[in-house]
Amino acid sequence: RLFGGLVLDVKRKAPWFWSDFRDGLSLQCLASFLFLYCACMSPVITFGGLLGEATNGHISAMESLLGASMTGVVYSLFAGQPLTILGSTGPVLVFEKILYKFCKEYTLSYLSLRACIGLWTAFFCIVLVATDASCLVCYITRFTEEAFASLICIIFIYEALEKLSHLRETYPVHMHSKLDFLTIYYCKCEAPTHPSNETLRFWESNKINVSGIAWENLTVTECRYLHGEFQGPACGRNGPYTPNVLFWCCILFFSTFVLSSLLKKFKTSRYFPTRVRSTVSDFAVFLSIVVMVLIDFMVGIPSPKLHVPHMFKPTRDDRGWFINPIGPNPWWTVLAALIPALLCTILIFMDQQITAVIVNRKEHRLKKGCGYHLDLFMVAVMLGVCSVMGLPWFVAATVLSITHVNSLKVESECSAPGEQPKFLGIREQRVTGLMIFVLMGCSVFFTSVLKFIPMPVLYGVFLYMGVSSLRGIQFFDRLKLFWMPAKHQPDFIYLRHVPLRKVHFFTMIQLICLVLLWAIKVSRAAIIFPLMVLALVFVRKVMDFCFSKRELSFLDDLMPERKKKKKKKKLDDAKTEGEEEEVKLAGCSGLALSLGLADPSEINISDEMSKRTVW
Amino acid sequence: RLFGGLVLDVKRKAPWFWSDFRDGLSLQCLASFLFLYCACMSPVITFGGLLGEATNGHISAMESLLGASMTGVVYSLFAGQPLTILGSTGPVLVFEKILYKFCKEYTLSYLSLRACIGLWTAFFCIVLVATDASCLVCYITRFTEEAFASLICIIFIYEALEKLSHLRETYPVHMHSKLDFLTIYYCKCEAPTHPSNETLRFWESNKINVSGIAWENLTVTECRYLHGEFQGPACGRNGPYTPNVLFWCCILFFSTFVLSSLLKKFKTSRYFPTRVRSTVSDFAVFLSIVVMVLIDFMVGIPSPKLHVPHMFKPTRDDRGWFINPIGPNPWWTVLAALIPALLCTILIFMDQQITAVIVNRKEHRLKKGCGYHLDLFMVAVMLGVCSVMGLPWFVAATVLSITHVNSLKVESECSAPGEQPKFLGIREQRVTGLMIFVLMGCSVFFTSVLKFIPMPVLYGVFLYMGVSSLRGIQFFDRLKLFWMPAKHQPDFIYLRHVPLRKVHFFTMIQLICLVLLWAIKVSRAAIIFPLMVLALVFVRKVMDFCFSKRELSFLDDLMPERKKKKKKKKLDDAKTEGEEEEVKLAGCSGLALSLGLADPSEINISDEMSKRTVW
Repeated sequence: RLFGGLVLDVKRKAPWFWSDFRDGLSLQCLASFLFLYCACMSPVITFGGLLGEATNGHISAMESLLGASMTGVVYSLFAGQPLTILGSTGPVLVFEKILYKFCKEYTLSYLSLRACIGLWTAFFCIVLVATDASCLVCYITRFTEEAFASLICIIFIYEALEKLSHLRETYPVHMHSKLDFLTIYYCKCEAPTHPSNETLRFWESNKINVSGIAWENLTVTECRYLHGEFQGPACGRNGPYTPNVLFWCCILFFSTFVLSSLLKKFKTSRYFPTRVRSTVSDFAVFLSIVVMVLIDFMVGIPSPKLHVPHMFKPTRDDRGWFINPIGPNPWWTVLAALIPALLCTILIFMDQQITAVIVNRKEHRLKKGCGYHLDLFMVAVMLGVCSVMGLPWFVAATVLSITHVNSLKVESECSAPGEQPKFLGIREQRVTGLMIFVLMGCSVFFTSVLKFIPMPVLYGVFLYMGVSSLRGIQFFDRLKLFWMPAKHQPDFIYLRHVPLRKVHFFTMIQLICLVLLWAIKVSRAAIIFPLMVLALVFVRKVMDFCFSKRELSFLDDLMPERKKKKKKKKLDDAKTEGEEEEVKLAGCSGLALSLGLADPSEINISDEMSKRTVW
Repeated sequence: RLFGGLVLDVKRKAPWFWSDFRDGLSLQCLASFLFLYCACMSPVITFGGLLGEATNGHISAMESLLGASMTGVVYSLFAGQPLTILGSTGPVLVFEKILYKFCKEYTLSYLSLRACIGLWTAFFCIVLVATDASCLVCYITRFTEEAFASLICIIFIYEALEKLSHLRETYPVHMHSKLDFLTIYYCKCEAPTHPSNETLRFWESNKINVSGIAWENLTVTECRYLHGEFQGPACGRNGPYTPNVLFWCCILFFSTFVLSSLLKKFKTSRYFPTRVRSTVSDFAVFLSIVVMVLIDFMVGIPSPKLHVPHMFKPTRDDRGWFINPIGPNPWWTVLAALIPALLCTILIFMDQQITAVIVNRKEHRLKKGCGYHLDLFMVAVMLGVCSVMGLPWFVAATVLSITHVNSLKVESECSAPGEQPKFLGIREQRVTGLMIFVLMGCSVFFTSVLKFIPMPVLYGVFLYMGVSSLRGIQFFDRLKLFWMPAKHQPDFIYLRHVPLRKVHFFTMIQLICLVLLWAIKVSRAAIIFPLMVLALVFVRKVMDFCFSKRELSFLDDLMPERKKKKKKKKLDDAKTEGEEEEVKLAGCSGLALSLGLADPSEINISDEMSKRTVW
């Protein structure tokens, strides 16, 4: 039945709608919202900045902020799984870059063509919703899910470190300076000795009287503007060496990371009553940010700060908030847009659904159920709206979503010292998501506060998010086994039932997949990355030949259901499609949670739970 | 009997002499030696530097190095407890400062008077040895011992941080600089606008042609030498702002601390075989130093380095390696020196013996016994030698000794994960101590290597030593109880038998003593600090009125023996002095270890042990 899944999703989620707001009234939600707001702001603005660079300002920070806020608010209000946080992803950026380059080459209107593609993508996504294609997510087993999540986390960590190391170029340091020569060091602006033709033309066109300029009194910006040259022993390649800033950024970065981690861990310490400890632990990252902002403000080193656009208007004056999908382009571009839209659809579908699978994991013990169809439907609708308004597209962001879920964990109050707190569930509600994106939209109005937040502090938060999201990924636990003598290995359920050799083999395959994915992600073929994630599902299928079903059931929890279905298919292929569909639906909508409690993978979960709650 | 204790000590230690060298052949001893060598070098040189400032170069780094090396070698070879590390202590520095000031005021020869005082002190110490006065150490209970040790550790931590913050003055930072003005910032040397009379006199006496100097081309040193003035927006109060160095020092400092702590903890991780882990853990601090030195070298920021004198000769040319105790001073100074020598004796005695008590603690399970009399005898002899040679005096250094003992801990190889390794004992030997001080003496010959060690790295090592010495001090465990809700409190034996209110009261008294001691230590009366430690013993005596004997036996382990003795004294005061002496001797020479196993304090030890081995 068309839209059958969507209708079921709505029916399942509707009864929970009011409780989704009531359940949000908790101090933990406030902590989660403040933390995630800080964490989301920077990527949205950075992404906007990168997009602005790539598209010559057609879509930039302001558009990114507005798009994220609108999409986020609507998604948080109506999606099937409001715990998912939407954000910008790498493949989308790559796609936009390629598209802009293409449009420039063939002198097409970028925004109009983009609107067409966006509308087609939205249409295809809605077709996917109508055909209940989201049920395919049940083919995404723990193997695929963890490989993807690990990769995204590693990229997150890598990017946090890369951003820090990138500051070396913005703030060059005079490495081997001699302190005794400090009186002799200087870096002044000078008239270029051999002005290039470009420089001469620039002077001419701006009617600059070169001989009348007091070059040595120019500031760095003025000197750059007038095409001056920097001369002196304290000059780097592109300007004067910057004292202190780089090292101060390093201090901010690592301090934020360490402070967040320590405060988070404070929950399991012995001091103060449980309520105080868990509050501190909940607010860990927000507290760290506040402390580091204050320290940065007091020290007064000009570290790079978060810059939020302070006017609510499109970045370029030649565009408005509504884009005509045809505009100046020839009519056939509307049809031609169909082809890139197909690629775009796979890209959006994969990014959205795999993250949704991770959020809806059995281990999170979600009570209000999931809604893959509804999720995709909301993303598709907002994708269409964003396209017409000329805003970037937003899909589920893996690390932010994991962090969001983790920040909403409810645990039992541990009473006996040394006892691990029990994981009780997640505070499932729509308030945090809604607040994050409402506040993001309002950010334009309090730039005066946000401009005190140093970027390295936010990079430190990214590092923290990346590292903390890695915990509880079974793949990493297995990876660690390589360095562990057998007698020290923890008592994982799969180690009891699967020979160590086989466990290592399984891990190695996953590792190779990860490395290949990484290679694709960083190469120029980054755009096919979502397709390659699909390939993982096939790798997993091939593994049925190398491992026994029993082994796979321990190493890859989600397998048994797929098995059952496959067996069924083979045995009674004559059965009606309708029944098959029902089984799939049950499988992917989380209702299967109540079934299969006798299955060995279930034992694994409680084991997994206790491990994860250490964090 | 005169020298009875000394003879017993020699008899007790002599049979172990060869094993003291055999037992030193272990990788752990190499790790301990490398670590302690790095840790000892800096205080000896810093102390020398401070002494040089205070005494106008009469005794400076070179003398300090030679004195420490000589005393250390002799002490390590022949002392009763070679695990004790000798070093320089605060009160000695204060004493020398006062003495130098006094000598200058009354135009006496400082070195000669000092030699007299030193010889008298050595004589008094030998008298103390002859009369077996070291037996008084059995009055130093855990209460006194921990208050003293805590204070010294806190001072160690405080000083490490203070030294780091002191770098702010040496390397001023341009805090609120604007990056855009970097082309305009400079700090040049200029001729002083209003030269002071002193400056004019200096120019005249050195025949400096002021008008002929190209002031703006002078380096910082040249400018300072010629009494120039620093002018420009990049000038601090006493010279140009120093870029990067301060923040780089902070990074080095905290990285060293964190790296050392992490590597030390690596022992209890699950990875790699036990042998690898314990080796890494043993070499933790040395590895950290090596890593940080390499990083510092590669980055190339001119951080302050360890400067070791590179010539083997007295700092001042007007003194040799032999000082005449009378010299140019009037003859009666020899007798007058008797009075300061008395103070000095208390100072040396207290510093030496309380540290020896800490090293000889029951919890360390030393098998080769102690030798308080022999220790003091060796210190006294070397004190005489150092005085005559015009070198500083060295006594047992608390934190270095605790660190030395901790670095030589032998623990069972833990097999089951999560199991605490059992503490087996200390590697009692003379090799590490001997090697440390032999190498220290040879340091003059490899200054070219040592000059790569940045000072902030060594400060980081001090912080690590201070913090790690604090672990396992029961006083701190009790202090933490203030912030712990009752249900989270660990299962300390004393918490079972003493009401919490009483435990807190005991801790408060100790804390107040500590604060008073701190106040004295930092005030101008620092020289009476060792006397105040004596006062602690009396405070402890008064506490007999506030606590029941049973309570004290749990809170203050060493008490029972004293109790027994006191009871005995009251009951049969008629008994001969000789017998009493024997009991005391047994009490203070560690032989009592085999007795009193039934006593409740003994249970506490094993509990204590398991706690300490976490570290």
